[in-house]
Amino acid sequence: MGSVGFVSPQSMRFNEPLPLQSGAWLTDYTLVYETYGTLNADRSNAVLVCHALNASHHVAGEYADQPNSIGWWDNLVGPGKPLDTNRFFVIGVNNPGSCFGSTGPMHLNPGTGRPYGADFPVVTVEDWVDAQARLVQRLGITQLAAVLGGSLGGMQALAWTLRYPARLRHCMAVATAPNLSAQNIAFNEVARRAIVTDPDFHGGHFYAHGVIPKRGLRVARMIGHITYLSDDSMEAKFGRALRDSELGYTTQDIEFQIESYLRYQGDKFSEYFDANTYLLITRALDYFDPAHACGDDLTTAFKAARGNKFLIVSFTTDWRFSPARSREIVKALVDNRIGLSYAEIDAPHGHDAFLLEDPRYHGVMRAYFERIAAEELA
Amino acid sequence: MGSVGFVSPQSMRFNEPLPLQSGAWLTDYTLVYETYGTLNADRSNAVLVCHALNASHHVAGEYADQPNSIGWWDNLVGPGKPLDTNRFFVIGVNNPGSCFGSTGPMHLNPGTGRPYGADFPVVTVEDWVDAQARLVQRLGITQLAAVLGGSLGGMQALAWTLRYPARLRHCMAVATAPNLSAQNIAFNEVARRAIVTDPDFHGGHFYAHGVIPKRGLRVARMIGHITYLSDDSMEAKFGRALRDSELGYTTQDIEFQIESYLRYQGDKFSEYFDANTYLLITRALDYFDPAHACGDDLTTAFKAARGNKFLIVSFTTDWRFSPARSREIVKALVDNRIGLSYAEIDAPHGHDAFLLEDPRYHGVMRAYFERIAAEELA
Repeated sequence: MGSVGFVSPQSMRFNEPLPLQSGAWLTDYTLVYETYGTLNADRSNAVLVCHALNASHHVAGEYADQPNSIGWWDNLVGPGKPLDTNRFFVIGVNNPGSCFGSTGPMHLNPGTGRPYGADFPVVTVEDWVDAQARLVQRLGITQLAAVLGGSLGGMQALAWTLRYPARLRHCMAVATAPNLSAQNIAFNEVARRAIVTDPDFHGGHFYAHGVIPKRGLRVARMIGHITYLSDDSMEAKFGRALRDSELGYTTQDIEFQIESYLRYQGDKFSEYFDANTYLLITRALDYFDPAHACGDDLTTAFKAARGNKFLIVSFTTDWRFSPARSREIVKALVDNRIGLSYAEIDAPHGHDAFLLEDPRYHGVMRAYFERIAAEELA
Repeated sequence: MGSVGFVSPQSMRFNEPLPLQSGAWLTDYTLVYETYGTLNADRSNAVLVCHALNASHHVAGEYADQPNSIGWWDNLVGPGKPLDTNRFFVIGVNNPGSCFGSTGPMHLNPGTGRPYGADFPVVTVEDWVDAQARLVQRLGITQLAAVLGGSLGGMQALAWTLRYPARLRHCMAVATAPNLSAQNIAFNEVARRAIVTDPDFHGGHFYAHGVIPKRGLRVARMIGHITYLSDDSMEAKFGRALRDSELGYTTQDIEFQIESYLRYQGDKFSEYFDANTYLLITRALDYFDPAHACGDDLTTAFKAARGNKFLIVSFTTDWRFSPARSREIVKALVDNRIGLSYAEIDAPHGHDAFLLEDPRYHGVMRAYFERIAAEELA
């Protein structure tokens, strides 16, 4: 098993406006993407990887000019890895509204000549899938072998089967849910309030003030991070361990290692993530609800996907998108007699497990891709 | 079943300094308290009720001059109620460091003549119990029939049995834990960071600036509130219901009813709760860990309580202090052959269940108090 090595992002500009779910349009936008492996002669081996909240098009490999720039799913994607780039042509794309290169709130609004800021149009999972579909089409791919994603990326994989079922064969949705629960929305809302009420947010137009709402971003990330880890893994990793040998009896300084860890995660995040993007992406999570238009009946929603096959994966300790949520998807697929594999992985790492290298999890992913390769890429 | 009716808080001043776990002292402090019912002739019917994070001495009844001022555990305490004030003499006391009348950060620091603010000494569960013990002694009560508390109040009830086992007969600890988990501490820390990084906090000396760090308090309360409710009860109460009939496609305004509810809870809390108190009380939660001094062995810790009897109550959907945490206490008591009753109540309301009127829960409380009355108050 090796790395895809040094990679470079590419970009593609779209002059045709993208109609959005909200009724607004995204005009004149650019998508940044990366590809790994080689598209085969009949263009049947392409796999699109969709990113979650704070990731990007940089799925695998590293940048020659940037130390520590390994892709976020590099453990899964590469030569000889579960998603084997010797067999598959893998595409990673950064979604519009994000802050890693594709058109986003920090870019110039062609309507005003100033950064979009809070005026960047609200984007949904479906909008992202529409944008991805255009990119895939321009790459000359009529049908993807698979669309793969974890968490919010898994929602995009699901949305592909509902909007463009003929343009993909397999949907691989890991650690995801058919919609957010009230508790999920609640955590998103607290994070958003922390950002929006930071005086440095300036109503989302902070770029013009030369400041960044870091206080809000830090708190948002700390909240998010708690929900990504399982109670048990946090207990195993930190427990009640103190940072120093004795209690300092202080309300504002660090006492416990978990506090130190969370503050570090928050600080790091506030250095690179855009506040408006955080609002946009958590809203896209909130809005995703394919059953809603079908009388809240998920089975009806998945009728559209009868020509697709599915791999659904969940993790036992994921309390953000619990196995019960994945089983809702499984039930809707079974109701439609859609071919599927479902793996509930007994892993201790909570929601974060989808990014980690668990042998059972990666074994499932490897087996599924090997079957696609054996049966469809002969 | 009736109400204890109109009540009035009383206050007691203590000139003898209180030594604190941190090594500091609390000098010249006042405790505010209320009592309901009548102390019997042999002073054997007194029950001390300890409060949790945002409650106070005002356990039951109401204030004649304040509308909507019903005590926080009024459904449990009153004539004919599970803790029957026709039989028991009930004491509610506000802990030092709180913001409801007892000496706290908003009061004058005798050392400086200015409000304590962030200089209020760090207080622990054990410090509170020491302060309560002095008050109980001054009320002429040598031995309490019971000490009762839920959540952080339950920790105080447990600490009573470890520090003053001869001064109480029964410990009744509801929806509590023998210490906070890493996840519990993590949520507290995010809430504290939201407060401390609010520019209006001014390092804890905001009183002098005529401002209140309401932004931080709002976020802190929203986070806390999510952890008080169960995922299921939030789903049942709010689900994905929208506030308006259609989506507004907005990142900063309210879309879902759960958002509206949380914002309301945060706003309300920020109007009455003190930011320094929030830091102090969450720290007291973090620090509580009676097993720590006994080599992290809870069984050893509870040796001190061999003369006491216990009622431990937990709620199935409480993910903040789950039944598993209560069972740790039960195991330590069983190991010590201490008499106990344990009730795991199948209730949907999460941690908040301890404040609600669930018939099975209140049935257990009533039966336990009735047994005390029958066996000990003959």
